[in-house]
Amino acid sequence: MSRKPIGIGLLGMGTVGRGVYRILTGNSDMIEQRVGVPVEIKKILVRNVAKDRGIRIDEGVLTADIEEVLSNPCIDIVVEVMGGIHPALEYCLEALGRGKSVVTANKDMMAVHGKELFEAAGANGCDLLFEGSVAGGIPIIRPLKECLAANRIRQLIGIINGTTNYMLTRMSRERCDFRTALEEAQERGYAEADPGADVDGFDAARKLAILASIAFNTRVPLEQVYVEGITRITAEDIAYAAELNYVVKLLGIAKEGDGGIEARVHPALLPKTHPLASVNDVFNAIFVTGDAVGDVMFFGRGAGEMPTASAVAADVMNAARNLIKNVPGIISCTCFEDKPVKPMGLTSTKYYIRLNVADKPGVLAGIAFVFGNNEVSLASVIQKHTTGQQAEVVLVTHRVLEHNLQAALNTIKGLPTVNEVSNVIRVEGD
Amino acid sequence: MSRKPIGIGLLGMGTVGRGVYRILTGNSDMIEQRVGVPVEIKKILVRNVAKDRGIRIDEGVLTADIEEVLSNPCIDIVVEVMGGIHPALEYCLEALGRGKSVVTANKDMMAVHGKELFEAAGANGCDLLFEGSVAGGIPIIRPLKECLAANRIRQLIGIINGTTNYMLTRMSRERCDFRTALEEAQERGYAEADPGADVDGFDAARKLAILASIAFNTRVPLEQVYVEGITRITAEDIAYAAELNYVVKLLGIAKEGDGGIEARVHPALLPKTHPLASVNDVFNAIFVTGDAVGDVMFFGRGAGEMPTASAVAADVMNAARNLIKNVPGIISCTCFEDKPVKPMGLTSTKYYIRLNVADKPGVLAGIAFVFGNNEVSLASVIQKHTTGQQAEVVLVTHRVLEHNLQAALNTIKGLPTVNEVSNVIRVEGD
Repeated sequence: MSRKPIGIGLLGMGTVGRGVYRILTGNSDMIEQRVGVPVEIKKILVRNVAKDRGIRIDEGVLTADIEEVLSNPCIDIVVEVMGGIHPALEYCLEALGRGKSVVTANKDMMAVHGKELFEAAGANGCDLLFEGSVAGGIPIIRPLKECLAANRIRQLIGIINGTTNYMLTRMSRERCDFRTALEEAQERGYAEADPGADVDGFDAARKLAILASIAFNTRVPLEQVYVEGITRITAEDIAYAAELNYVVKLLGIAKEGDGGIEARVHPALLPKTHPLASVNDVFNAIFVTGDAVGDVMFFGRGAGEMPTASAVAADVMNAARNLIKNVPGIISCTCFEDKPVKPMGLTSTKYYIRLNVADKPGVLAGIAFVFGNNEVSLASVIQKHTTGQQAEVVLVTHRVLEHNLQAALNTIKGLPTVNEVSNVIRVEGD
Repeated sequence: MSRKPIGIGLLGMGTVGRGVYRILTGNSDMIEQRVGVPVEIKKILVRNVAKDRGIRIDEGVLTADIEEVLSNPCIDIVVEVMGGIHPALEYCLEALGRGKSVVTANKDMMAVHGKELFEAAGANGCDLLFEGSVAGGIPIIRPLKECLAANRIRQLIGIINGTTNYMLTRMSRERCDFRTALEEAQERGYAEADPGADVDGFDAARKLAILASIAFNTRVPLEQVYVEGITRITAEDIAYAAELNYVVKLLGIAKEGDGGIEARVHPALLPKTHPLASVNDVFNAIFVTGDAVGDVMFFGRGAGEMPTASAVAADVMNAARNLIKNVPGIISCTCFEDKPVKPMGLTSTKYYIRLNVADKPGVLAGIAFVFGNNEVSLASVIQKHTTGQQAEVVLVTHRVLEHNLQAALNTIKGLPTVNEVSNVIRVEGD
């Protein structure tokens, strides 16, 4: 093979950048064999060229000057693994503008600026690939765009945040509370010092916006994704869920139905028999239902240096192959349509509701009456006496409209016999 | 869009053929949008044109003459869903010879004649796509070839036969025997009247030969795949396995290690916590370990009209896109290397061994002595008194070489205190 190598400009040498470097250099013989020509890292953009990174990098490869990457004629593909929206976005747009294909693992950028980037890629006939931006090493974007392309996707349900899945697994196995699980996750390096993006669901929401846009061929704007985190989940909720044969997971859910697309991230009770229910610890999985294929699930590590780098390196190889064959952008943006996102009030699910009530006769009847008045019918009820004066009531509803449920809860909160609506969690997957 | 449609010649109108027809006609608007031009079925080869198929097919589309497909200039892609090796192979080779891309769901043909077909595809610059030949609608071939392309694959473990997985699930849940489970599978249409290909492991072996060839970039000949079916698995084995925290599954296993590739299909004990352990009923799953990505798993329906047709239709769309862009064969045969398949005697696993022995002192010591002499060390032992004279002993070994284990068993069979070696099952996944 005597063809010209494909040159890579790597933007960023953090965790994922180092992984990409390791794969492209360590597996270079195999990658050359599979691509047809060598794939070589020509430049790496870093802030501090002098910093000791613990790996040997050829002289002159590191640079602090983006122009050395963007204006380098030997660089065919720019790999953006810096993270953050700025200046990653400007660098990617500029690279595309100069006819270089872009591979990125940047979910923040793709969730918010996907349209702009795809337009630049299209205008310049370049590839824009981003498998690494969702669920780390798990193949999901290419399978959705290619392998399931003949399906109308009905729904996509994902465990797409490893931190919260680790925490919920701990809370379930060790019956510990949210705070303890968070501390443990932080000690192990699974959660940031400021864990908001994970525990409040924002990280999952970005990934869901990307996945839903691909699954339903319409741009699902991040700000239209309903988001609710796991901070209010208690060990009691998890124990009641188990008693009812459910586990509690933070899910990203996208469905297409009458009235548009549902896109929501929230904790949910999931039947123990559901394939996602046994996805534990930091593992991620995406469960997809298509009109032809039925249910399929993709499982693996959703983060980390090497898993994410595996996805990025595969995208690099595909972009390289497309360049060699002169077909960059052979599969590009798939948002052909413009479908509305359904308001949350019009979605319908089952609900788990935990109430603290006065422990006296007729209380349950009063609550049931309010639900009935709001067209909320109940599937099961657990009542536990906690003290002489109070009782805990756990209800699971049948499928109801969100706004009916909220109306019922508003009335129930005002009942003199109800001390507290302790928690309300949606029930999915059955 | 005013470009010329892509024409399809469908060979066969059985279960999968009908599914492909349904998808390509029913989702035609969406498929046109995603491919860029319409994808139209021009001819369907059937044995009997007059037969009532319960679906409306345009006049003149059905034909009993293969020449009407092969010599039709409007047909760009031949979709082979006839099954069986002959004449499917000859038709596919002829189609490739005439420059038509081929999509097939034929595992028998691909497992035995993959090389010949790929050579014809390469010589004529055509696509040869076969996602539907393994694990129905589950995306696995394209993910291996593209999404995990930057990885050296360490191992691939699959539940790739739905019939036997259904039977083992029944045997486990209802504690029924092999015969009952088989009858139930036959009643539900999951097993053939002659169930040999499924229960003896041959169906899984064909799929494993295909998957192992892709995972390790070397042709793994079907005749070198070790095959053992599930006919000797009893309800007792499944109950003992459960007691030891294992489930019993028919696995297709491919590993790369010193001395070559392991490729084997056999029942195995799998830890209950393994992701494959909760894959039940007719579902399939393939668990892959790569050097970068770590563990990933692909799960779904491994057979059936619509799931398999989903994979075939996706391949048709990819072949169509490649034709439009003039890059058929952009990813073709990936068997770049020539690695040996390791003889079974040189593989090493743990083993579960169930023995019927005389119920008297010293028997276990005698057995343990023979194992020790053959470098087989024991991890756990369960002994159950069955009658006054006999006892059942269940042993699990540490990891040992197959030929050492077989040597030990040969000696143990000759011990006067051993009535019977009731079963020997490998233990995988921990």
